[in-house]
Amino acid sequence: MNLLLFTSAETTTPLARTDPRAIHLVDILRRQPSDTFDAGLINGPRGKGTLAAISPTALTLTFTWSNSPPDPLDPIMLLIGLPRPQTVRKILQEATSLGVTALHFFSSDRGEPSYTQSTLWSSGEWRRHLLAGAEQAFCTRLPEVTWTHSLPALIARLADLATFATAPRVALDNYESAESLGKCHVLRDTPSENHPLSPAPPPAPVVLAFGSERGWSPAERDLLRTNAFTLAHLGPRVLRSETAITAAVAIVKSLRGLM
Amino acid sequence: MNLLLFTSAETTTPLARTDPRAIHLVDILRRQPSDTFDAGLINGPRGKGTLAAISPTALTLTFTWSNSPPDPLDPIMLLIGLPRPQTVRKILQEATSLGVTALHFFSSDRGEPSYTQSTLWSSGEWRRHLLAGAEQAFCTRLPEVTWTHSLPALIARLADLATFATAPRVALDNYESAESLGKCHVLRDTPSENHPLSPAPPPAPVVLAFGSERGWSPAERDLLRTNAFTLAHLGPRVLRSETAITAAVAIVKSLRGLM
Repeated sequence: MNLLLFTSAETTTPLARTDPRAIHLVDILRRQPSDTFDAGLINGPRGKGTLAAISPTALTLTFTWSNSPPDPLDPIMLLIGLPRPQTVRKILQEATSLGVTALHFFSSDRGEPSYTQSTLWSSGEWRRHLLAGAEQAFCTRLPEVTWTHSLPALIARLADLATFATAPRVALDNYESAESLGKCHVLRDTPSENHPLSPAPPPAPVVLAFGSERGWSPAERDLLRTNAFTLAHLGPRVLRSETAITAAVAIVKSLRGLM
Repeated sequence: MNLLLFTSAETTTPLARTDPRAIHLVDILRRQPSDTFDAGLINGPRGKGTLAAISPTALTLTFTWSNSPPDPLDPIMLLIGLPRPQTVRKILQEATSLGVTALHFFSSDRGEPSYTQSTLWSSGEWRRHLLAGAEQAFCTRLPEVTWTHSLPALIARLADLATFATAPRVALDNYESAESLGKCHVLRDTPSENHPLSPAPPPAPVVLAFGSERGWSPAERDLLRTNAFTLAHLGPRVLRSETAITAAVAIVKSLRGLM
């Protein structure tokens, strides 16, 4: 935890001594009364927290926040065939630490439908992994996450989103793709550099789709091609979902000069 | 396990029923006598295994191997400030699945010296994670791994290695670097494309160095700069070691047209 994140409500009430943030502050960072620490308001500013008092059951914290809003997240949207919960945990944390704007999980034709019933989703545990990824990255912003829409519904919705309606769409596919992601023409045609005297342009939005661990079905490939997705690969080696997603996001960010 | 890997000695003796590969074949893949499966000789050819017989205590397997040697690994060498064992496990598996040639861990100034005493190393467990990464990637080749050399010794050794003596050297550093890895001039000057009618050139060797989770010390930065390492960053977000390593390897591979 490089940054401890709080909701607005949490900043005005004592923090239970058993809260993982309290344990981190007192038992790992060894903060004493009047010591400060890096803090952030979820989706709000960063700032400094002060450990005002420690009781056996709670910490009293005070905060001062920066006046500047946090940087926006990178406009990268991920559509992901829902993998097993242990894999989703890693993806949520790593993709959040990399700063993507949205992760939309769908039940893919070759996935396991029961994965939507995991307590990872029903218990709200999924949000903990976003917080861990944001705290790691020293960032207050959390990506949007959904797991109840179908792939056709997610694609249909793209047209209604100002940021992503005309963004390049790439589906990762090691079997029927002609280009590697790093050479993918729809990404390389996106201007990533500007006149040296102009302010840097905001990074271009991109939609990246990943199939289930068993790959895309023929019907899913048809749907993707019909909806202007370009297929691209990550080389001949078969990667775990979480490795492929981190690799693909890193490659897209590097094409835009961000990594 | 997309591919089951065996040593030469293991291919001529029964496989204990309790071996993870036996459990995978019989209990996960549900193979029956005379069924085949994808197999590989470690650092040798791929081929097909046949489940010849199942007894309560062992499997009898036979193999036929391909005549073509496996593709070489990508000539990417990683020098890594030794992180905690749980992080090393992920790095070993992910970097192997990505196909790097070598991982050399060193005790960094800001790392924890006791990490070299982990049973991960003394028990030989480290090798299991290489096998898992290679089996995932459908590859028989394992990278070279060391964990007992100092950073100065690893750098001194580079001059003696034909492949890496003149390779570009990049150290990842989020604090004192002027360029992002994807824009790093020593990597972009490496030719990655050839005349369309020529055979593809082998990918260029690269050495990538990663500090400990707490970053490089001033003395380590001096050592790196004196030894022709260029410093490059992965953007302003603070990433876990395993995320940064996967991201950096993916970016380097994409610059060479491999991802």
